[in-house]
Amino acid sequence: MKLKTKVFDIESGGALIVLLNEKIAKELDVTSGDRVRVMAEGKYVVAVVDIAKKLKNKDIGVYDEVRETLNLNPGQIVTVEPEEIPESIGSIKKKLDNKEINVDEIYNIVNDIVDNILTQPEIAYFVAAAYTHGFSMKETEHLTKAMAETGDILKWKKKPIVGKHCIGGVAGNRTTMLIVPIITAAGLMMPKTSSRSITSPSGTADTMEVLADVSFESTKEIKDIVKKAGGCMVWGGALKLAPADDAIVKVEHSLELDPTPMLLASITSKKYVEGDTHVLIDIPVGRFAKCSAKRFKQLKKKFENLGKRLGIKVKVIKTEGEEPIGNGLGPALEAKDILWVLQGHEKGPKDLEEKALTMAGILLELSGKVKKGQGKKKAKKLLESGKALEKMKEIIKAQGGNPNIKPENIKVGKYTYNFKANKSGKIKILNDDRISRIARFAGAPKSKGAGVYLYVHKDAKVKKGDKLFTIYAESDWKLSNAKKFSKKWSPVEIK
Amino acid sequence: MKLKTKVFDIESGGALIVLLNEKIAKELDVTSGDRVRVMAEGKYVVAVVDIAKKLKNKDIGVYDEVRETLNLNPGQIVTVEPEEIPESIGSIKKKLDNKEINVDEIYNIVNDIVDNILTQPEIAYFVAAAYTHGFSMKETEHLTKAMAETGDILKWKKKPIVGKHCIGGVAGNRTTMLIVPIITAAGLMMPKTSSRSITSPSGTADTMEVLADVSFESTKEIKDIVKKAGGCMVWGGALKLAPADDAIVKVEHSLELDPTPMLLASITSKKYVEGDTHVLIDIPVGRFAKCSAKRFKQLKKKFENLGKRLGIKVKVIKTEGEEPIGNGLGPALEAKDILWVLQGHEKGPKDLEEKALTMAGILLELSGKVKKGQGKKKAKKLLESGKALEKMKEIIKAQGGNPNIKPENIKVGKYTYNFKANKSGKIKILNDDRISRIARFAGAPKSKGAGVYLYVHKDAKVKKGDKLFTIYAESDWKLSNAKKFSKKWSPVEIK
Repeated sequence: MKLKTKVFDIESGGALIVLLNEKIAKELDVTSGDRVRVMAEGKYVVAVVDIAKKLKNKDIGVYDEVRETLNLNPGQIVTVEPEEIPESIGSIKKKLDNKEINVDEIYNIVNDIVDNILTQPEIAYFVAAAYTHGFSMKETEHLTKAMAETGDILKWKKKPIVGKHCIGGVAGNRTTMLIVPIITAAGLMMPKTSSRSITSPSGTADTMEVLADVSFESTKEIKDIVKKAGGCMVWGGALKLAPADDAIVKVEHSLELDPTPMLLASITSKKYVEGDTHVLIDIPVGRFAKCSAKRFKQLKKKFENLGKRLGIKVKVIKTEGEEPIGNGLGPALEAKDILWVLQGHEKGPKDLEEKALTMAGILLELSGKVKKGQGKKKAKKLLESGKALEKMKEIIKAQGGNPNIKPENIKVGKYTYNFKANKSGKIKILNDDRISRIARFAGAPKSKGAGVYLYVHKDAKVKKGDKLFTIYAESDWKLSNAKKFSKKWSPVEIK
Repeated sequence: MKLKTKVFDIESGGALIVLLNEKIAKELDVTSGDRVRVMAEGKYVVAVVDIAKKLKNKDIGVYDEVRETLNLNPGQIVTVEPEEIPESIGSIKKKLDNKEINVDEIYNIVNDIVDNILTQPEIAYFVAAAYTHGFSMKETEHLTKAMAETGDILKWKKKPIVGKHCIGGVAGNRTTMLIVPIITAAGLMMPKTSSRSITSPSGTADTMEVLADVSFESTKEIKDIVKKAGGCMVWGGALKLAPADDAIVKVEHSLELDPTPMLLASITSKKYVEGDTHVLIDIPVGRFAKCSAKRFKQLKKKFENLGKRLGIKVKVIKTEGEEPIGNGLGPALEAKDILWVLQGHEKGPKDLEEKALTMAGILLELSGKVKKGQGKKKAKKLLESGKALEKMKEIIKAQGGNPNIKPENIKVGKYTYNFKANKSGKIKILNDDRISRIARFAGAPKSKGAGVYLYVHKDAKVKKGDKLFTIYAESDWKLSNAKKFSKKWSPVEIK
């Protein structure tokens, strides 16, 4: 059927959509959610039909993606035909019926996600299948590889390549920004990609961005940085690394679903595309962390098994997830903490330093750089000698930042509020969720200088009226929101 | 935050969506899929955020639904604030975790579906939960009532009110159009709503539309028709009956999911809103039907249990699902069949007549109109005496049709093709799926005169060259598509 292009100047931001009115849809024997093939000048796309009552009879509505792919002009005549359901949908159904799906089926699904052929509800069924039935390790391996191989992959001649990842859920956990300088100071390569925050006050990419650029769109740029500095700390989202992940996360978001197969594949595929040979996975366990002690055991086994299947040596450790780590929470406040630790300054938070040294030590041993039992000692030496700081400066410089930046010169929000103890006693609970929300109400991570600075940690003794934390914001309005929330939902419990 | 309205002149056709660019979204601390409250002149809506890169910084993009609800003009300034996640999402998550949800939670979910607050992937998770874990009968009862009570309900002073429903899957199964005239001829009320076809050559609403109007938008109109004629056969889709069903069916469509709780609730809620007191459910079982013998037993038990909970006397019968019923498949061809049966004409298909008499007989007994064992006899009498035909004429008239229409005057497609036996023998298989597809390729149900007319049924003996069926189409192009398919995938197997 010949239809006339009507252009809507927006992106559909997912599956390719075309709009048809009811009459034309009936004529084509398609309904909302069915697919059609749209053809123009020798090119074609397969798009999902949406019924739009207001459209003129012979019009087909297209958004930017379809328009750009077919290079359409407003009013241009296109040919439209009904199209079969993609095979990948049958495979998703199969998985929802708790049947094993094979390597081809999994690659088909991931390809169709990346190519915007599957709609959000269809991807949601895939997530639901993984959430309710789980995946076999074989399926998880295929999913991981498919997610990696549908995007860019970093390739290195030298080995080992060192990687780390934290599954998240604990505010302030910026160990990456200490581990990468230490590991690279030991002469190992560590091309680290990180995410931005979704629900926490800051992600590693947000914090690193205070010190240097993190958005690089080509793997060539990354390779150049790593060549110069031995490592990098960049935002994975700017690159085309495991692009299916974004579409999957999008439909997981509102229900806060994080099915194990997706968790394993999302993290491991990113380590795989970094080219890592040795990887440490940090899983915080505790009241406010994402992971229970029981789930930790399962995840540890699965991560290590998956690593073996992909030729990556993976070690998984359980860490403290009872309270935030470090003192600063929010991009600028965290960046200051990091520089203070690297400088050996007394303001550097000891818990963060200790955790980073332990992890760097494990990685030095895992990669064979030092003998068993010597890792942490070596890491400490690299930190205390200032070699790690030197490496940090090299990386900042390679990523276009100012290597001589001083922590005291990093700007924080000028609107502040001191939250004080309402009685004397011992800190019993430091509620990570609530502190994170306060920091976000204050504007973090979007406002780099916003966040929370903690003066106390769990088990500290305090007197009534002591400052427990300061809220920093870049606007009066945001400060008052954060203040209001902190008064309503105190994140600190004193006993 | 204050933003400027940018109008996109289309319907989003589901959850209320607003478009923000990335910068504004960050400023509001929301991301794609999060909710915002949009306020203008004392009114507000809660809408889901979609990120649109091309939008100007301070613009908010709105589709028709948001625009109309808030009565917005292009360029108008609105206030936008982040909004909490609806509670119903937590309940969907709970169900996906295989935990029982209570009456309030179920009503919340259904309300939020009807009010376009839930997105398609969120509804898909609800369907996935029902599909993988099932619902308890209590949950199913609440779902059914919630689906009914969020729309219009027909109320009657007189009792009994008779209803029927077929779960579908067999082409040509137009028993409703014989049962309603018979039951109303017996003096009982039968306000029947039907659906249009989704995948078959015709639905009851499509076939009835050949003879009369079926689209009535108010319950008052329906009541007037029933008052005049004792019954009706109208399209449920034009009314606001169980409106959540449409949104649910939309996300079930591409995976062809039909979870038992949704099946039970969808059908029973519609009987509930018709005000039925006595209902017969027809479940075809067989090779090409939707239902296996095993599933039949489960469904029968559940339908009857659910009926009891809602105060409806429900009986479920298993019927033949091995081949199409009747001879004509497609709106006009089926309407001719129906009139022939009502006239006692020899062309009236016997299998369809027999099935309708059996079902009408059961309903006459179930409702207490006649004694046990006398139902079918009574039904036959009403048909053979011409009383059912008279009732049909009354109903056609009440629905604005021509009561004196003759079957031979109903127009069918002028483009025809005779499909002939390629050998002599006995008909072993009459593939319902393939025949349906041939009829749809020919243009049914959109082209009223298109479809397939069968000359043979299963077990019939045929000679090579005998006509097995005729394809009718309203255009040469559609005929050749149907012909091509029938040659490639013969729906008849002769042994």
